[in-house]
This record gives sequence, C-alpha cells and structure tokens, in this order.
Amino acid sequence: MSSSNAPSKNMLWGGRFTGGLDPLMVAYNESIYIDRAFYAQDVAGSIAYARANKNLGILFDDEFAAIEKGLSQVRTEWETGKFEIRAGVDEDIHTANERRLGEIIGTAIAGKLHTGRSRNDQVATDMRMWLRDELRKIEQYLVDFLKVIAARAEKEVEYVMPGYTHLQRAQPVRWSHWMLSYGLSFAADLERLREVLKRVNRCPLGFGALAGNPFGIDRDAMAKELGFDGLLYNSMAGVADRDFVVETMQWGSMLMTHMSRWAEDLIIYSTAEFGFVRLADAYSTGSSLMPQKKNPDSLELLRGKSGRAFGQMAGLMMTIKGIPSTYNKDLQESVEPMIDHVKTVGDSIQIATGVLSTMDIFPEKMLAALTPDMLATDLAEYLVRKGVPFRETHHTSGRVVALAEKEKVPMDKLSLEQLQSVDSRFESDIMQTFDYQRSVELRSAKGGASKSSVHEQVQVLKGML
Amino acid sequence: MSSSNAPSKNMLWGGRFTGGLDPLMVAYNESIYIDRAFYAQDVAGSIAYARANKNLGILFDDEFAAIEKGLSQVRTEWETGKFEIRAGVDEDIHTANERRLGEIIGTAIAGKLHTGRSRNDQVATDMRMWLRDELRKIEQYLVDFLKVIAARAEKEVEYVMPGYTHLQRAQPVRWSHWMLSYGLSFAADLERLREVLKRVNRCPLGFGALAGNPFGIDRDAMAKELGFDGLLYNSMAGVADRDFVVETMQWGSMLMTHMSRWAEDLIIYSTAEFGFVRLADAYSTGSSLMPQKKNPDSLELLRGKSGRAFGQMAGLMMTIKGIPSTYNKDLQESVEPMIDHVKTVGDSIQIATGVLSTMDIFPEKMLAALTPDMLATDLAEYLVRKGVPFRETHHTSGRVVALAEKEKVPMDKLSLEQLQSVDSRFESDIMQTFDYQRSVELRSAKGGASKSSVHEQVQVLKGML
Amino acid sequence: MSSSNAPSKNMLWGGRFTGGLDPLMVAYNESIYIDRAFYAQDVAGSIAYARANKNLGILFDDEFAAIEKGLSQVRTEWETGKFEIRAGVDEDIHTANERRLGEIIGTAIAGKLHTGRSRNDQVATDMRMWLRDELRKIEQYLVDFLKVIAARAEKEVEYVMPGYTHLQRAQPVRWSHWMLSYGLSFAADLERLREVLKRVNRCPLGFGALAGNPFGIDRDAMAKELGFDGLLYNSMAGVADRDFVVETMQWGSMLMTHMSRWAEDLIIYSTAEFGFVRLADAYSTGSSLMPQKKNPDSLELLRGKSGRAFGQMAGLMMTIKGIPSTYNKDLQESVEPMIDHVKTVGDSIQIATGVLSTMDIFPEKMLAALTPDMLATDLAEYLVRKGVPFRETHHTSGRVVALAEKEKVPMDKLSLEQLQSVDSRFESDIMQTFDYQRSVELRSAKGGASKSSVHEQVQVLKGML
Amino acid sequence: MSSSNAPSKNMLWGGRFTGGLDPLMVAYNESIYIDRAFYAQDVAGSIAYARANKNLGILFDDEFAAIEKGLSQVRTEWETGKFEIRAGVDEDIHTANERRLGEIIGTAIAGKLHTGRSRNDQVATDMRMWLRDELRKIEQYLVDFLKVIAARAEKEVEYVMPGYTHLQRAQPVRWSHWMLSYGLSFAADLERLREVLKRVNRCPLGFGALAGNPFGIDRDAMAKELGFDGLLYNSMAGVADRDFVVETMQWGSMLMTHMSRWAEDLIIYSTAEFGFVRLADAYSTGSSLMPQKKNPDSLELLRGKSGRAFGQMAGLMMTIKGIPSTYNKDLQESVEPMIDHVKTVGDSIQIATGVLSTMDIFPEKMLAALTPDMLATDLAEYLVRKGVPFRETHHTSGRVVALAEKEKVPMDKLSLEQLQSVDSRFESDIMQTFDYQRSVELRSAKGGASKSSVHEQVQVLKGML
Repeated sequence: MSSSNAPSKNMLWGGRFTGGLDPLMVAYNESIYIDRAFYAQDVAGSIAYARANKNLGILFDDEFAAIEKGLSQVRTEWETGKFEIRAGVDEDIHTANERRLGEIIGTAIAGKLHTGRSRNDQVATDMRMWLRDELRKIEQYLVDFLKVIAARAEKEVEYVMPGYTHLQRAQPVRWSHWMLSYGLSFAADLERLREVLKRVNRCPLGFGALAGNPFGIDRDAMAKELGFDGLLYNSMAGVADRDFVVETMQWGSMLMTHMSRWAEDLIIYSTAEFGFVRLADAYSTGSSLMPQKKNPDSLELLRGKSGRAFGQMAGLMMTIKGIPSTYNKDLQESVEPMIDHVKTVGDSIQIATGVLSTMDIFPEKMLAALTPDMLATDLAEYLVRKGVPFRETHHTSGRVVALAEKEKVPMDKLSLEQLQSVDSRFESDIMQTFDYQRSVELRSAKGGASKSSVHEQVQVLKGML
Repeated sequence: MSSSNAPSKNMLWGGRFTGGLDPLMVAYNESIYIDRAFYAQDVAGSIAYARANKNLGILFDDEFAAIEKGLSQVRTEWETGKFEIRAGVDEDIHTANERRLGEIIGTAIAGKLHTGRSRNDQVATDMRMWLRDELRKIEQYLVDFLKVIAARAEKEVEYVMPGYTHLQRAQPVRWSHWMLSYGLSFAADLERLREVLKRVNRCPLGFGALAGNPFGIDRDAMAKELGFDGLLYNSMAGVADRDFVVETMQWGSMLMTHMSRWAEDLIIYSTAEFGFVRLADAYSTGSSLMPQKKNPDSLELLRGKSGRAFGQMAGLMMTIKGIPSTYNKDLQESVEPMIDHVKTVGDSIQIATGVLSTMDIFPEKMLAALTPDMLATDLAEYLVRKGVPFRETHHTSGRVVALAEKEKVPMDKLSLEQLQSVDSRFESDIMQTFDYQRSVELRSAKGGASKSSVHEQVQVLKGML
Repeated sequence: MSSSNAPSKNMLWGGRFTGGLDPLMVAYNESIYIDRAFYAQDVAGSIAYARANKNLGILFDDEFAAIEKGLSQVRTEWETGKFEIRAGVDEDIHTANERRLGEIIGTAIAGKLHTGRSRNDQVATDMRMWLRDELRKIEQYLVDFLKVIAARAEKEVEYVMPGYTHLQRAQPVRWSHWMLSYGLSFAADLERLREVLKRVNRCPLGFGALAGNPFGIDRDAMAKELGFDGLLYNSMAGVADRDFVVETMQWGSMLMTHMSRWAEDLIIYSTAEFGFVRLADAYSTGSSLMPQKKNPDSLELLRGKSGRAFGQMAGLMMTIKGIPSTYNKDLQESVEPMIDHVKTVGDSIQIATGVLSTMDIFPEKMLAALTPDMLATDLAEYLVRKGVPFRETHHTSGRVVALAEKEKVPMDKLSLEQLQSVDSRFESDIMQTFDYQRSVELRSAKGGASKSSVHEQVQVLKGML
Repeated sequence: MSSSNAPSKNMLWGGRFTGGLDPLMVAYNESIYIDRAFYAQDVAGSIAYARANKNLGILFDDEFAAIEKGLSQVRTEWETGKFEIRAGVDEDIHTANERRLGEIIGTAIAGKLHTGRSRNDQVATDMRMWLRDELRKIEQYLVDFLKVIAARAEKEVEYVMPGYTHLQRAQPVRWSHWMLSYGLSFAADLERLREVLKRVNRCPLGFGALAGNPFGIDRDAMAKELGFDGLLYNSMAGVADRDFVVETMQWGSMLMTHMSRWAEDLIIYSTAEFGFVRLADAYSTGSSLMPQKKNPDSLELLRGKSGRAFGQMAGLMMTIKGIPSTYNKDLQESVEPMIDHVKTVGDSIQIATGVLSTMDIFPEKMLAALTPDMLATDLAEYLVRKGVPFRETHHTSGRVVALAEKEKVPMDKLSLEQLQSVDSRFESDIMQTFDYQRSVELRSAKGGASKSSVHEQVQVLKGML
C-alpha cells in the first residue's frame, strides 16, 4: 500500500515509483510557478502538434477537434485568471495543461496528445516562442528610444558642452554629439538583436526526448503554424540547446552596459557641480531624511540592473558549461533568469526613454563649463597649419597652458606678446582660435563633433531603425 | 492642482515634488514585494530605535509605549497574512510599516519614529539581521548534512571502490574516503560560514543617511537589543556597505561548487555503466516519454543551481563595483539576489542531505569495477621496497601493464615468469600485491585511504561541528 | 633641476610634468609588452594616416615618402626581432614606433605623423585590425573542424550507440547523430562569428581624442586602404567602444561552452566503464605516479579553458560597465584579455580538430551498451499504433519494465505471454520491436536519429561552411 | 620505428606511449613557462619530502645529502637566471627540476625522489606555499596603506566637505570621515585576509596521486619543515582542492571593488567641476593630443583592474564547477590566474598607497562646495528638538527649501520672518543652524562625522593592524 505522500498519479513519471516524496524536493523540482508564463505558447504548441498528428493519422479528426477546443478553454482559463494550479501535482506548465485538458475532454483523448513528444522538445518550443514574442516587443521599445535620441539630437544641435576624456575636460563637443554617441551604440544593439532573434526563432518541436519522432511528423508544417523562421536539424542538440537564451542574455547584458555608461554620464551631469541636466520629478526620488534631496534613482537603477542582467548571463553560462549533451535537469535553471532578464531589459529601455524624453538640460551651464585651455589642441593645430610638426606644437601649446597657469589667467586672456614669448610664430589671428563653436565646427570630418556630422549621424541612425 | 497621478503624499519624499508619475517607474523603483521579507526585522529595529530615542528624551514614555504596541500589531498583521500592501503607495517595507503604524496610533506619534534615521541605515540594519538569522539556520542544515556524511563514512568503511583521477581508474580507495573528501570540504565551508556571520552581524543602526546621528543616540544599546555582535564604525561606509552580502554569496557560491562536484560524481556513479549508487525514488524523476527512465534530477538541480548562486554573486559584484561611496540606489539590487541566494543554498543543503540519507549503494559493483592494472603503482612500489629507484620502477611497471595488454590478460594473471621477463627482481611474493584491501590499507599515512585514516577524518570532521 | 627619475622627454605627455616617477607606476601603466602584438597594424595604420594627411597637404610628398619608408623599416625590425624596446620609455606600441621612426627619419618629419590623431583612435584602429585578422584565421580553423565532423559523420553512419538524457541510457541513436549534435552547434558559432566580424571590422581612425579630425581627413579612404568594411560614425563613441572585444569574447566563451560539453561527453565516453572512444596518444598524457594511466588531458584542458575564456569576458564586461563615456584608462584592460582570448579559442579549436581526427572509436562497445529497456518507448509506440492513448501505453510499458526487473531478465527475453499478462493487445509482432537499428531508423522525421536524417544534417552543415 | 616527434623519454609519462606528438598540443599542455614561478617552493618541498623519505629508510643518508645538495644547486640556477628550460621537454616545474637534478647527481639517486609522490600533491604543495608567501607580502602592503589612511585622517581632521548620497550633495562631513569610510573597509579586508591565509597554509604533501602515501610518511614533520600551519586530512580532496585559490580571488576581487569605488570617488573629486583633490604627477599622465590634459590614469587603472581581478575569480570558479572529484587537468587553469591575481592585487595596493601619499587636497574648494540647503536636515532637527514630529519637520524643511528656490536666495539668506512664514516655531536661534562645522560636530554618536568619532575610528583601525 502506498504511503500518504506517495507520488501523485498525475505526475507524468509516476508509473513505477512507489517511495515517498520529500515535500522540499517537490518544491525544489517543480517549475510551474515560473513556466506558467508560457501557457499560451504551450497551448499553441500542443495544438500544432496535435494537428500534425491528425495529419499522420495518430489522431482522428474528432479527437483533434476535441483537443483543440479543450486547449482553447485551458488558454482562456489562464487568460482570465481562472486556471487553478494544483499545488504539488502540477509540476510544470506542460503537465498542468495536459491535466486540465484531461478533465475537460476526458483522458481517453487527452492521453493521446503527448504521443511521440517529450517535455524536452515541448519546453524548448515554448521557450523559443515566448522569447521570440518578447524580443519583438523589446525591438520596438528600442526603436522608440532611438527615435527620441534622434529627435533630441536634431532639435538641440546648437548646444556646445565640454567633451571629457578620463572625466577631465578635453575638447568642446556638441550636446547632440554626446547623445548620438550612445544612440549609435544602441543602434548596434538593435542590429544585433535582429540577428539573435533569427537564431531564437527556430523550431525544435518534433524532436521527442532526444532521438526524434518515430511517426514521421511534419516538422515543417508545425514550424510554419507556430511562426518559426526555420527548423533546428539535430534532435540531440535541439532538446538541450539553450544557446538562444545565452545569446539573448549576452546581447541584453551588453545593451545594459551601454545603459549603465549612459546613466553614469547623466548621474554625473546632474550633480550640483556639473549641473548640465535635471531629471523630471517622475524619474527622481527624494530622501526620507534630507528634505532638499532630489536623487536620480531611475538612472542608478538602470546602472544597478546592468549588474543583475550580467549575473543572469554569467550564472546560466556556468550552469550550461560542462554538462553532458542532451537534456539534463540543470537546464531548468535557464527559465527563470530568461524571464527576468527579458523583463529587466525591456523595462530598462522604457525607463530610459522616459528619462530622456522628460529631462531638462541647461545649455548655459554646459557653455559655462567650457574653459579656454580646452582649446590647447586648437592652438597646436594653428601652428600645424603653419607647417610646424605636431609634436613640437604640442609642446609649445603645453607651454602656453603652463604660462596661463603661472599668470593665473585663462589662456585666452594671455596677450599676443605673451603668446609670442612662447613661440614667435603666433600671429594676431591666433585670437580667432578661442571660439568654442568654431573649434567644434572644425571637426567636420565624418563622425566628428560638427553640425554636419551630427546630421549625418542622425541619418545613419534612422537608417538602422 | 495636482494631476491624478501625482506623487502620493504617503511617499516619504513627496514633500516637494509636483510632477506626474510614470507607473512603470513606480514599479521599477519599488521594493516592497521583495523587502517585505524583512518585516519582522524592520519592526524589531524600529522598536529598538524608538527605545533609544525615548532614553534620549526624543520620545516620551507613553509615545514609545504606543509605538511599541503599534509596531507589535503591525508585525502580527504580517504574521497572520492580514497586512494589506497599498499598491503604488507602499514603496518599501519601511514606508509600509510606518504608514500602517500611523493608521494605528496616529501620525502625531508615528511621525516621530524616523527622527534622525534614514532608510539608508534602516535597510542595512534589516538586511543584516535577516541574513544573520538565515545564516544561522543554514549553519544548522550544514551541521546536519555533515553528521550524515560522518555516520555513513563510519558505517560503510569496509567498502572499497575505484578511485579516479581524470575520470580514469587510478587506485583503489575506500567509499568512505570518497564521502569524506567532500565532508571535509563542506566542513571548511562551515568554518568559513562562522567567520562570515561575524562580519554580517555588525550594527549600522544610528548612522542616518550618511553623516551619523545628531542626537547622541546610544548605538551600543541598540546593537545589544537587536542581537548584534558589535558595531560598524563609520557612517558613510556603513550605509553603503553590502560587502556582507557579497561575502555571503562568495561563500555560498563556493559551497555550491562543492555541491556541484559532489553531484557530478554521484550522477556518474549512478549511470548504468558505473552503477555504484542509486537514488531513492523521492529524489529521482521519470520521463514523460521513456517509461524505463529514472533520472537523478535532484543532483542535476544541485549542479544547475550552483550556476544560479554564482550568477547572483557575479551580478552583485558588478553592480557594486565602481559606484561612488555612500548610498546609491544601485544597491537596491542587492536585496532580491540575497534572499534568493540564501534560499538556494539552504534548500540545496537540505536536498543533498535527503539524497545522501536515502541513497542505496552497491558495494559489489564498486568491487567489480576494480581492475588489477589499478595496482600498477603498488607493483612499482614493490620494487621500491627492494631499493630500485622509483623512476625505474615506474617504467618497469608500465612495461608490465603493456605486457598484460599485449597478452590480453589481467595483470594479476601474468605468470611470475612473465613478470620476471620484465624485471628479474620480481619474486614470488609479488602476487600478494594483487589485493585491493591490502593496497588501500597500505595508504595509512595521515589523510590516506586506509581504515585508520578514515576514522581519523571522521574525528576531525566531528571536531569541526 | 630635474630628479634622476623625472619623466622621460620621450614620453608623449611629458611636456609639463616635473615630478618624479614611481617605477611601479610606470610598470602598472605601460602596455608595450602586451600591445607590441599590434606592431604591424600600428605601422599600417600610421602609413594610411600619413597618406591621408599628405592628400590634405598636411604632409609634403617627400615627407610622406620618408614616413612610409621609415615605418616599413620599423615593421621589418619587429618582424626580424631587432626592434629594441626601451624599458620605461616606450610606454606603448604607438610611442615605441614613433620614437623609432624619429630615430630613423628625424623628428622634424616624424613629429608630423601624429597630427590630429590621438592614441585613442590609434589603439582602437590597431585592435580592430588585429582582431579582424585573427578572427579570420579562427574562421578557417572552425571550418576545418566542421569538415572533420562532417567527414566522420558520413563515414561512421552505421554505428548505433546509447543516447543519454540525464546521463541515463535513454534511446538508441547513431554515433554520427551525436557528432552532428555538436557539429550544428559549432556551425551556429561559425554563422555568428561572421556577424561579429562585420561589427569588428569598422574603422575608428580619424576620430582624434574624442571630438573628430579638424583638417577634414578622408576617413573613407583610410578605411579602404586598411581593409575595413565600413566606418564608425561617432567620434566620442568610437574612441571608447570596446563592444567589438566584448562581443568577440561573448562569442568565444559561447563556443567554448560547446567545446566544454563536447569534451565532457568524450571524457565520459573514454572511461573504462563506457569505453566508446580512445584518444590518440598525442592527445593523452600519463601519470607521474601510476604507470597504467592514460588521461584525456587534451579534453580536460578544453573543458578547463572554457572557464578561462568566460572569465576574460566577465572581467572585461565588469571593467567597462559603468565607466563614463569616451576614453578612460580602464579600457587598457581590454587588450591583454583580448589577445589571450583569441589565442585560447583558436588553439582550442585546433586541438579539438586534432583530437577528433585521431580518436579511435569502439562501435562494438557502443552496441554492447544498448539494453532492451531502452526500447520501452518503442514498446509504448507499438500500442499507440494500435490506437491506445500514449499516456496509457506509457504506463503499460512502464509495467513491462517493472516485470522484467522483477523477473530479472532483459525486457526482450520476456515471453509473449508475460507481455500479454501486462496488456493483452501485445501480439507476436511485438518481438520485432526489439531491434536497435529498426528503432533508430524509425526516427526519420527531420532532425531525428535515422540515417537519412544524418545525411541531411551533413548537407545542412556543409551548406553553412 | 618511432617518428621524429615521438614523446621524449624525459616526459614522466612517456613509458608506454608511442604515437607522435602534436606540437600545438605540447604547448597547450605544458605549464613550465608559468609554474616556474614556484621553483623555490618546488625545491623546498622536494627537500622536505626527501628528508621524510630518508627518515623512513626509503633513501639512504648519502642519497638524501646528494639530493639536498643537487636541489640547492637547481635553486641557485633559477635564482641566477642560469636554469635552462628544455623547450618541449620540461613540461612543468616538477619535471624540469627533477630532470636537472638527474643531470647533476645522476638519475640513479634522483630517480628515487618521486617515490610515493605524484605531481598532484606536489603542485598543490607548491601553490599553497607560494601563495602563502605572497599573501604575507600583500598583508604588509595593506598595513602600510592603512597607516597612510590613518595618518592623513588624523592630520586633516579639520576639513569639512560635502558628503554625497546618490552623488547629490547631502550633508557636510569631515574629509577624514570620507577617508576612513574606505579605511575601515580595507581593514575588514585585512581581517579577512588573515582568515584566508589560515586556510591557504595547510599541507597536502604526502597525498600521492589521490590515495595517500603507502610508506607511512610523516606528514606532520614535512608540514612543519615547510612552515605550514597544519595538515589537510583527505588525500582525494587535497590533491584537487583549489578552494584556497578561489577564496583568495574572492577576497582579492572584493578588495578590488573597494579599490574601484575609492578610485571612482577620487576621479570625480579630481574633475575640474569638483576640484577637491589633485594627483601627483607621478600618478597622472597627459594626452598625446591635448596639451592641457592631466589624467588620473592610476585611479582608472585601479578601477579597471578590479574587473580583471573579478574575471580571474569568475573564470576559475567556472572551471572548477562541476568537474568530478580528485585531480582533473582542468585544474591547471588555476595556476596562471592565481599568479596574475596576486600581482594585480599587490601592485594595486601599492599604487593606491602612492596615490594617497602624494595627493594634494584643496580644503577651500571642499568648503566652497557646501551649500546651505545641505543643512535642511538640521533645520528639521531644530524643530524636532522643540517636540515637532520628524515627519512634519521634514515637510516643513522641504517647504523652506522650496521657498529659498523660489526666492532665488541661499536658504541661510532667508529672513527669520520668511522662515516663520513657513513655520511659526522657528525662532531667532535658528540662524545658528547654518554652520557647517556645528552640523558635523552634532554627529557625535559613534561612527558619525564629528571629530571625536573620527579619532575613535582611527583607534579602531589601528587596533586592526
């Protein structure tokens, strides 16, 4: 006689087990509270699978009709929040849906659904369909974000700000040039996303547990019905392949490093000391202790969540690395991080879009932060135009910087005589050098900080949408 | 007039914001659905804080009494599942509890609770107390696991099995020696856990937002009331320090690598090809397609979850790396992985204990897997005892192995003459070498595979509990 | 008076510094012993840059000719091992090459080379060219490896082996099907490599330090001369973009997880217990202690180095995450791991090719490892073909497995009567089920284990080369 | 007849291999160019091992004397750069040293050295000794760094600066309080280092390949001679345990996150916009393009190398995770990252010490960056002292901040009447609140920003050295 906590007969694998269950093991093993996210894909996959089996003669027409109708009801129950998970019995979304189908149409027919199929190919199919659908949403979020970047870049092209290297003031650039520096990185993310999507959206259904389908199922037809772009071609690989998740996470964690660097810049630009930008209240929070505070929490969360996204990728790669081929239960650990990763990336892009759309900028503070020594390179280039080797002009300009420091005046307030005391080749036209807009416009080679370059970048970016 | 989605006045930082809210930002920012795990610690911390403020005269006796009583009710509401989170209003456990306290005892008194305190020191206090409590549970799980290892090692000391290096049969060892090889690694985890706990259990309460408490609060008294082992000593560091989480995760992910290697061995040992062990049904599952399958899912999950644990650590380290000092919102990303990490590690140790407690072993299969060539080293050592340099005996023994392969007989079936054809110093007593138990017992230097060594190891392990 | 360890005047940035140097800081800062790997790319980039400057009139024809000739000599010195690095002076490959150029052609002309250029765009150009060249080599290694897989898969298509899930015997498959399961993963790596290469091979030259080139340099012409596929379009992004390294490492560490799983399988298959394969001596090593040992070190190194490759990717992502935009010195940390990563991946593919090319297989051992219970699914499918719902047949077949275990006979040795005692629908033709080749051939749906599927897979794979 | 590239007879495992070698495999497999770092430890370990074998009677006294003398000569050859590695023959430091020993004293005696020993216990012993020695150096570097922090903190205790949270100005703190916020983190690193060292410094010598020593060697005596703190107790675990490397790297990468955050703060503080600090020239570099630049390269390298240190840890954890027990060649991948990790951490601490020792600070700029709104909390606390609930005072103070913003005056320039228009409980003594030193001194509870607290922290820190 079986013990009171014997395996439920509803568990798919219950046939020959008699021992008792460890409730913690049940919880440790089950995935239903996570993979229920795939309920719609699971239903669609089962309908396609049943239709293919009908075409093979494994199912009669009326059996298929019953299955299709029953599964539609299952889906509706999920959609309307009426599906009741049986705790400890519904191990995963596949068993839950089939259990419920059996209740609705009877197990005599429902019991035919899984013919030749394994949860191994079933879950891989569900995951790929779900991920494909989510990545397409993210693709749109990213396009929207890029449109905001392009729009602001065009509109605010006049403003000049300090460009920094090593976080030290370096040379004047356009504010739009800064925005586009991220815009083009995010556009590369978009390009790559479409490549990832192509590999995600390939069909493993019909692979069985590992060896393939023995009834000659038409995998092309199923793939077409389910909206896949093509097939996978090896059953052993296909049931265990989580590369599509890893690649998605590699993509997502790369995008999040862009997000993090973008946030880092804006956090610094929104300090009192820099003061170039101010976040809208909707993307800021205050302090529970300090009444005057307004903190860029949205940006810090974007930066912080890039660690989360990376950790998910790193964890899954470790999980996958070195396990033997085909399905091993280790792979269950791919589901939860995939779902959270996609949510993290999708939310983050939308938050960033909100931040950028509503952020105030202070061009006058950007301008005020420009200092004449940032034109030291222009000074050197002035002499280059007179034929002096750059290495020499670099040293000459360095001496002018030192002189200005010594005289405690901005470099543009040195007299022509003082400049000539450093190098006699400075002439009166040198004073035209001390003009930030002129300096920026000189950078008109492709990709530079000039207005024409900014406009070209906007066109390049739009062309990538 | 405020817009319909203006910041709720219940939000702590709502004083000076007027703009509308982005609902996604509210969800992206809030932590209540995660940090409610700390409700008991948050209540205890607030009571200790209020008591300290009472002693300072910041609160009157009756005010403190009201706060203590109200907070006790809040805690009871959580415990009994009656606490109602106000969606979009209760940003985190701290605001939720204070909001509810205000409803119970009125905001005139409840509004005094947060005096001189910030959510920065509050959340750090909650996290440390919660983690301390959980780590103490894990400490006990680990002790229980080690006791099972020690008990089986003592009971099953007679059994000899192949020891492998590079997964190739190497030398005979005791089955108990194998078990203890992990036992001592897990005992080192226990030793290290106690060191981590010491650093976790230090008190940041009274640090305010970053600069410390301006009313001279008695931090020692609060630390004592809350069961801390000592104080942290710098307010700027203390509010932003998540090293205690990182160190816990470093510890936990190291333990999980032990778990993973242990599982890897047992998965291999439970193959049909090895056949040394069989998991209890409670820790195995079957296949939805293949009726004959019995899979070591518990072990594969242990192995897979070591990736998860690592990923959480890696993600948090990335989040923390390079942010400026004191509190930044990035740090909110430490909470969810901490909670999941601790659950993952705690559950895993308990599962492993269950697996080991109920696992069948097949000593006769272990014995059958021993082959005479595994005694080739003993053969070499036979000659060493006769004064032949080891390097020479190693080559000699290698030639014996080659001879046995050539003759297609096990090495112990070579005749004395055949052996002497390789090296004339082999004498008739060489045949005593072909005895697995004898070989194992020869390894009696400390830490070796002999019975006496196994017993010593059990004592060492028990001494570490 | 300058101290004896004052900054060398050969250091590019030495113009205005007077303080002493910390020798450890010099070593901590310099990259010459690493980035000298790029000497050829650095020379080529400088020649292209000089030519473009000549076309602008920044250089006279004879100056350009001198530079081109001088740089060719520099390259020759590197190629012939005659280039002498000046310790503590040659900070990086760029300064080293320019220093040497100045010695050869005089600083009056050499000092014009760097006009409008920065080491920021220079190093990014060098790295991209170097990486492009290396990835093309790796592409060829990968093609060669895939050809070996395809060739063996075609040649050895007859052999049937146990397919495993959870490392438990599951269903019979073809040995070639196993080989192709990795073949198609590696083919996906090849597909992805070509996408990565496309993003690597874009030109940042002409971006200056961050703001672009002020002399209107023809970036298209330089890109063409240097073999780039196209331009990067934003100078601020371009000088700091190390995404091409990260993406390469993401690609490489994914490929290495395939390598690791492949190695894991083969390590298990080469145990005495499995015995399916034996590595050639050239890819094995012995033991310094145990004369009989033959260890699959090559496979273990492949598996171990997948951790190394991952760590490089993880480390660089952490380095990049969260730093402000444009160039920061943190990025120097991208060079060394990039070089080592590429070497690790390239070597590993070649080693794997060698291992597979020379590995012996033992088809008779594969066959001997097949057991009748691996046909339990076929038994269930037999009844499915008679119209019994799969769920029921799965339980029925499970009872047959249990009966065979109880009777202690292989399942195919049960009598028809015994089978019918479980389910009366078993008829005499059931005995045809117990045929491994037949079972495998039944899996003829696309991607299954049948011969026709194997041949199709080979075609698919060849089509991807 | 053997081919020309047959395994060299000097390879320890050459006895029974006949096939040709793949030169790339030789390079892929060998470790001599890395593990030669352990030459001194390898020699010392071999001498101790030989002495113990002499005491067992395995070696005669004169044989031991010859070995000791010969090994001393080997060590001297390494020390003086005279040791010649035989390319392709000396696979690792162990074989190299033994090969050379044989040349010096003859193989008849040298061939006895390895009796009962394996490279498995040998390399583990070498690594632990080497690491112990290096960690002791690092311990001293860390003590030196902490002394500089303590000294500057004491000396510069008067200076007040803005404390930031979320990189927004929050409350005034002492500059020394900021320095000590890192000082106490680094002191915790020191505490933990000593715990790690304890686990590193345990002896595996005498474990053989995996099963222990068959001649009863005195492991305690060897451990004592080699300076170990104690024994490891299980031979199977001991030969494969690389936890001591992982734990070191976990420690090191945690320390490097402190370093990274410290550097991040200082990079920000050294911007033109903040201007609180300026690095000495020795720790800065200039720009090859922009003459005016002075970049905090040392700090950026510290920040960047924290990624490198993390990547090494992450990579090794992945390598170790999930491999079977005892020695697998995967573990060779622990050596190179261990060596580089230790160098990275040790160098970084010394660089940081140099940076801090020579850095200029600008207290007047710190003071100038303080703004009256940073005293908004003090304003709220003023009312708290009059019995107003903090929540109310927080809102009140927030209204004062808003009023000041509206009036476009600093908060301390609002008249008493204006303040009273917000809350009539403000009295004339409110003006005393606008005093930064007073604000800081109020934070006198333990760990706060006051002078007394700073002095206490210095004492705590010194007590930890």
